[in-house]
Amino acid sequence: MPNQLFFTPGPSQLYHTVPQHLKNAIKENIGSISHRDKTFQLLFQEMKERLKDVLKIPTDYEIFITSSATEVWERIVQNLITERSHHFVNGSFSQRFFEFTQDYQLKSSFTNAGFGNEFSHFDVPYHAELIAVTQNETSIGYTFDPRQLETLRSSYPEKLIAIDLVSAVPGIQVDLTQVDTAYFSVQKCFGLPAGMGIWIVNSKCIETSKLKASHGHIIGSYHALSVLKSHGDKNQTPETPNILSLYLLTKVLKDMQLKGISNIQNETKYKAAVLYQTFEKIAQLNPFVETAINRSKTVCVAEVLDGNNGLIEYLGSKNFIIGTGYGAYRNNHIRIANFPTHSKEEIEQLVDYIEHYYK
Amino acid sequence: MPNQLFFTPGPSQLYHTVPQHLKNAIKENIGSISHRDKTFQLLFQEMKERLKDVLKIPTDYEIFITSSATEVWERIVQNLITERSHHFVNGSFSQRFFEFTQDYQLKSSFTNAGFGNEFSHFDVPYHAELIAVTQNETSIGYTFDPRQLETLRSSYPEKLIAIDLVSAVPGIQVDLTQVDTAYFSVQKCFGLPAGMGIWIVNSKCIETSKLKASHGHIIGSYHALSVLKSHGDKNQTPETPNILSLYLLTKVLKDMQLKGISNIQNETKYKAAVLYQTFEKIAQLNPFVETAINRSKTVCVAEVLDGNNGLIEYLGSKNFIIGTGYGAYRNNHIRIANFPTHSKEEIEQLVDYIEHYYK
Repeated sequence: MPNQLFFTPGPSQLYHTVPQHLKNAIKENIGSISHRDKTFQLLFQEMKERLKDVLKIPTDYEIFITSSATEVWERIVQNLITERSHHFVNGSFSQRFFEFTQDYQLKSSFTNAGFGNEFSHFDVPYHAELIAVTQNETSIGYTFDPRQLETLRSSYPEKLIAIDLVSAVPGIQVDLTQVDTAYFSVQKCFGLPAGMGIWIVNSKCIETSKLKASHGHIIGSYHALSVLKSHGDKNQTPETPNILSLYLLTKVLKDMQLKGISNIQNETKYKAAVLYQTFEKIAQLNPFVETAINRSKTVCVAEVLDGNNGLIEYLGSKNFIIGTGYGAYRNNHIRIANFPTHSKEEIEQLVDYIEHYYK
Repeated sequence: MPNQLFFTPGPSQLYHTVPQHLKNAIKENIGSISHRDKTFQLLFQEMKERLKDVLKIPTDYEIFITSSATEVWERIVQNLITERSHHFVNGSFSQRFFEFTQDYQLKSSFTNAGFGNEFSHFDVPYHAELIAVTQNETSIGYTFDPRQLETLRSSYPEKLIAIDLVSAVPGIQVDLTQVDTAYFSVQKCFGLPAGMGIWIVNSKCIETSKLKASHGHIIGSYHALSVLKSHGDKNQTPETPNILSLYLLTKVLKDMQLKGISNIQNETKYKAAVLYQTFEKIAQLNPFVETAINRSKTVCVAEVLDGNNGLIEYLGSKNFIIGTGYGAYRNNHIRIANFPTHSKEEIEQLVDYIEHYYK
């Protein structure tokens, strides 16, 4: 179905330049180059430089390649927490990260606001070593208020803060000076095929992992922070990574720089406003997140009072593919990705179809 | 450099049908489909069926998707070994798997024959729970004798046997009934871009992992065997995997089935014979592995008496890219991949160039 347009919250519509970059990758033998060669090192270095510019990453933060954001949860657990972390949970993904700490038998804690609800307080237990925050809860379309991130940072300057940037960046700006580590996967806002995660850490993370190891704790093997860093310093990776994805990310970052990140972020705001206005105008739809400031601009979620099936099928017949609800909300929510690849015109057309369906 | 031909031992030359499959993947929106959708489930199921046919995997073995063979080392350590494994080491990769057990503070042991040397005995310590064998040592071109695998199996029927199939299959046939778990990455003999590993396990592995967990040991998180299995039973994966690579693997498996696996393996034997005859004929070259039966058919390695630089540069000027030596052998070995995508004519041309260089 070549003419389908994907508004699913990841994997989603590919960034519009990706097909051409894939063709070039074949011409340039990207599938055959060695991860020990100069070509790879230059590519990795270029990706890091462009990503630092696009996400405004502080210059002394490190950038590593993993296979997914899911993997990064495990690597954070292995490297950055010895006994306890504290998790702000109000959706499936923030909850799942907490569950990883249980798999590793940590004594972690959480504040559960209820799915989609605002957090009423930001107290963190004294012994928690790391605070886990999810910028954009892809499951229910909640965005973490940047002022509350600042509150956490100033209240707990000695604790590490980890932020999940999946399906948030570069659609919205996040102040990474407020966190010690951040991560995302490429199949959301960056519009790439799935199969790579990016892990950003500062020197406090590197030191924390070293300290944990020096106390005799296991911190993993090929993706222990010390191993990632010793290879990363040479613009290399411990294992053969997804080189094709690294190439595509580098090219898409360049395209986004040319377009202008502030343009992309302004368009994101405009398109989100169009979507939420539609949710509010139509009687059968309600924005799932009540507090307007916490409504995600990149994954817009609505409750559908009479079930989502008819609407999703109707849009599908127009070749517009939107997301179902996640988990327990599968049949009662719609999730619409508003990523950089989705143009204003496409979102306006989508909204026209939704309005027509409910007329 | 569109006309280069890669004989590097991985990443290597793409299987000749991959560029066309990549174009089709774009047309079929493979980069946008969800890993929770029916399309994905059917693809995963098809890949497993084709792989079982191509590698003659026993029907009751499970097949899981990981990000690399390197990752599988870690998952084996986490899931299948509680205290001790035993490793047959005679190259960098078999050694590195052993080192993973040290990262996880296991009391593992090894038999080190010296790089490239035959193993003189196959005794395994009584308490070892798992025996690790490397079918094809990509670093030095050693292939494990199938008769010795049978010896291990019959001598230690109660122990798990893990075999590293990286850069071996489907170029050569391996009897998987002799092992409990096996794994490979796709950027070698399968001729795909890097970024996916395949992990094959039998029910004894699933039970071993369950037992380890039931004794209170940590077995990982999203890629614990129990989690891989519960998702795999539905033809799903715990995380969003490299769906594009899954698609390409499925298509290349189909192409290989159409060509005939026995044809591929017969060609591999012929091309390996041509390469080793050349190594023996030329005074400056020597096959690195002394015992003929242990010379890898898929990664052919020669010592170069006066250093490899001149030869590699000369071949490069002809657009034929071969591998340097690995690690300490970087400047003194050449490694030539003999994978299914490398045609007889291409190997013959390569050999002509080598002979011409030394004339």
